[in-house]
Amino acid sequence: MIGRDLLGIEDLDRDEIERILETAEHMREVSNREVKKVPTLRGRTIVNLFFESSTRTRASFEIAGKRLSADVINFSPSTSSLKKAESILDTARTLDAMDPDAVVVRHSVAGVPHRIAEVLEAPVVNAGDGAREHPTQALLDLFTVIQEKGRIDGLTVAIVGDILHSRVARSNIYGFSKMGAEVRVAAPPTMIPPFIESFGVKAFTSLREALDGADVVMALRIQNERLTGSFLPSVREYSNTFGIDRAKLNFAKEDAIVMHPGPVNRGVELSHDLTDHRPSVILDQVRNGVAIRMAVLYLITGRRRRSVAAPQEDGGDA
Amino acid sequence: MIGRDLLGIEDLDRDEIERILETAEHMREVSNREVKKVPTLRGRTIVNLFFESSTRTRASFEIAGKRLSADVINFSPSTSSLKKAESILDTARTLDAMDPDAVVVRHSVAGVPHRIAEVLEAPVVNAGDGAREHPTQALLDLFTVIQEKGRIDGLTVAIVGDILHSRVARSNIYGFSKMGAEVRVAAPPTMIPPFIESFGVKAFTSLREALDGADVVMALRIQNERLTGSFLPSVREYSNTFGIDRAKLNFAKEDAIVMHPGPVNRGVELSHDLTDHRPSVILDQVRNGVAIRMAVLYLITGRRRRSVAAPQEDGGDA
Amino acid sequence: MIGRDLLGIEDLDRDEIERILETAEHMREVSNREVKKVPTLRGRTIVNLFFESSTRTRASFEIAGKRLSADVINFSPSTSSLKKAESILDTARTLDAMDPDAVVVRHSVAGVPHRIAEVLEAPVVNAGDGAREHPTQALLDLFTVIQEKGRIDGLTVAIVGDILHSRVARSNIYGFSKMGAEVRVAAPPTMIPPFIESFGVKAFTSLREALDGADVVMALRIQNERLTGSFLPSVREYSNTFGIDRAKLNFAKEDAIVMHPGPVNRGVELSHDLTDHRPSVILDQVRNGVAIRMAVLYLITGRRRRSVAAPQEDGGDA
Repeated sequence: MIGRDLLGIEDLDRDEIERILETAEHMREVSNREVKKVPTLRGRTIVNLFFESSTRTRASFEIAGKRLSADVINFSPSTSSLKKAESILDTARTLDAMDPDAVVVRHSVAGVPHRIAEVLEAPVVNAGDGAREHPTQALLDLFTVIQEKGRIDGLTVAIVGDILHSRVARSNIYGFSKMGAEVRVAAPPTMIPPFIESFGVKAFTSLREALDGADVVMALRIQNERLTGSFLPSVREYSNTFGIDRAKLNFAKEDAIVMHPGPVNRGVELSHDLTDHRPSVILDQVRNGVAIRMAVLYLITGRRRRSVAAPQEDGGDA
Repeated sequence: MIGRDLLGIEDLDRDEIERILETAEHMREVSNREVKKVPTLRGRTIVNLFFESSTRTRASFEIAGKRLSADVINFSPSTSSLKKAESILDTARTLDAMDPDAVVVRHSVAGVPHRIAEVLEAPVVNAGDGAREHPTQALLDLFTVIQEKGRIDGLTVAIVGDILHSRVARSNIYGFSKMGAEVRVAAPPTMIPPFIESFGVKAFTSLREALDGADVVMALRIQNERLTGSFLPSVREYSNTFGIDRAKLNFAKEDAIVMHPGPVNRGVELSHDLTDHRPSVILDQVRNGVAIRMAVLYLITGRRRRSVAAPQEDGGDA
Repeated sequence: MIGRDLLGIEDLDRDEIERILETAEHMREVSNREVKKVPTLRGRTIVNLFFESSTRTRASFEIAGKRLSADVINFSPSTSSLKKAESILDTARTLDAMDPDAVVVRHSVAGVPHRIAEVLEAPVVNAGDGAREHPTQALLDLFTVIQEKGRIDGLTVAIVGDILHSRVARSNIYGFSKMGAEVRVAAPPTMIPPFIESFGVKAFTSLREALDGADVVMALRIQNERLTGSFLPSVREYSNTFGIDRAKLNFAKEDAIVMHPGPVNRGVELSHDLTDHRPSVILDQVRNGVAIRMAVLYLITGRRRRSVAAPQEDGGDA
């Protein structure tokens, strides 16, 4: 995978996903050591190019890079000055000219990492683009389920919440499907994307039906803007209908686990009790995120495609 | 002290304070070298979790961590999204799941580092919480006085300013008292906390009396919000009565030193002349701050309490 | 140059400029390696003190420092609290007390890095001060021209745009003149500083005349505040008259190159086509910026002037 972009789980096949998960297994061991550092990426430069602020995901990538001994540069352009697509690409091109070995991109608009990847020499990792994909989140979720269940194949995974607007849902639908799980989604009808069943997903508007026989219950975060002002009555209704607590968890298998990409709106998507205690594995997901990002950065960061003798990348000998 | 939190000087005994000061003596030597780096904390991760912005203190901890070869991650959550205590703790838990070896916390509300320390595995260093404590500031002040005077025991220390709202005052009252100094405070009556004498402190509303025989004169910073608008007349009055200049310094011992935690409101707490010249030792305090923070990070950062084989920390085998 | 400040090209002689350019040649080679890191500045601390935000220049200095194995601390004080000159200097003095080996300063007011350099022990690199100087930009431009043309001596360089308000123009006028080039400027009369010809520069209000026989065409960025609202009509006029496209580039020598300090206002200073393709060398300028900053940091960062046995720098034994 050296030099390749990681833009979405949609682009990966099962072998590639498995290779990342196996590599993450080794990486996880590094964070358990007293000296949590390997020299693997010494002298490599990783740029965190976050147009959308996200201290948690940024910190996870930064820690991942540093545990591999890479130099990590955080770069959060003020988005006010970057309204035009061309300005975003020029910013990315400028950073690329400083010879990074990987660029991690997050943007609130779907497809921006893809456009950036087209113009950069450095491989691009998508750290979340609009409602499209968040591939390292899905990879860490797969990794966490394997730790808990020993496999993905044959499991039943129920994703609950605003499927329509969730890049986490989208990436996980690709990931769990490709790895052989049965994927279900449960949401109010307005939050289910049309044609979702064409992805091989079973859609439910009844939580009870969706959870029946589920091994994994994944609650999604309701976006903040839907939690304020006039939306509050419906939030209570959402919580009553789709919020997971111990009583509703009984619909699922006895040994089902509960996941959430964080941060949890406590009492909305998950009860306080389930936020803090097993069978939820939220903090394991966070911990595994570092291992997954180490694996991804390690696998894609090889020798830059540009060779020293190659012509300038911004044109040719016109 | 491995694995222990440093939340306040209140919690330390004299032996522990002395151990930190002795360790800082060795650390100070590192910053005097051409190669200002030791491999002591290589492969350790230190998180600066600053809810209250403070570029100076953050930089001091960051430099301290890097001179010990630790990886330092700066994390400044936007406080607007963190109004609830539970959100603050969830943010801290999330960072903790990334396996840091120490978390440095600053927050404008007293007690937040203590609450965070209760839920984290990683040891927590309080870098200032509301008007409660700022222990590394008191430690660097103690260290600076020992450099100047050779001892603390038997000295007379006069702290001047808004004692009531100052975490620096509070931590220094504990620190200098425990190390055997006589501590006095001098302030307008409204700025002296009730029952202060129960801490063994002598309170004065006359600067002249407070400084009589003092070896150390420590001026506190007047908070910005008290320096603007309608407060200005009283600031002039404050400066006339409690601002330290060479004339008022004559009330103290001939060889008294002047300290200030910085940044100085010049002409308010200290005259321009005393801000810039001996016997003030303000920049020595800053320099010693790096050594103290290296010592603290070194002493508390051992093997994480979690062992690899231990159960998940977010619950148990329920 | 050990321990010296780099405040402007005005202060350098030709030998010094050549020494920096030769050093950058070696540094450029480092960024072409798989392991882009040399241990040269291991254990040194470099502070990026940016009062004016500039993620691009800050990233370039940060990458440069890290490729030399230095510890790099980013420090961007909120300028709102730093309106007084004395506060700025106190902030700088505070950082200096943490024993940095170099401090990189950017400020929107001309002369601030010079005032800071007067009070600091650490050498200061000016990363842009108001409309005065931006020396590392001029050095990377010289370096890029040498890569393209093999020399500076005897070349004709035409700088096009708002010369009056441009620190890039000013530093490049010094730099190219000292290195033996003929420097011309082309701009509307209101954008040409008075007495510019006393610098040995030929001023033109006709782009065609300025470009006639030019080997290098350097377009300057028009500041954002001149591109909005009521200025737009004149921006179109500016673009028509002074914006460089292939047609106007025909006025210059056949093998002329096009430069721009970035970011380009596409369609204003340069056509889209020339922004992206040869003979423009904009991304080479960015790439060379890292090499130049590595060279500058390496050359000035020696042993700190303060020796361990020396008296405290904030006074003396008064």
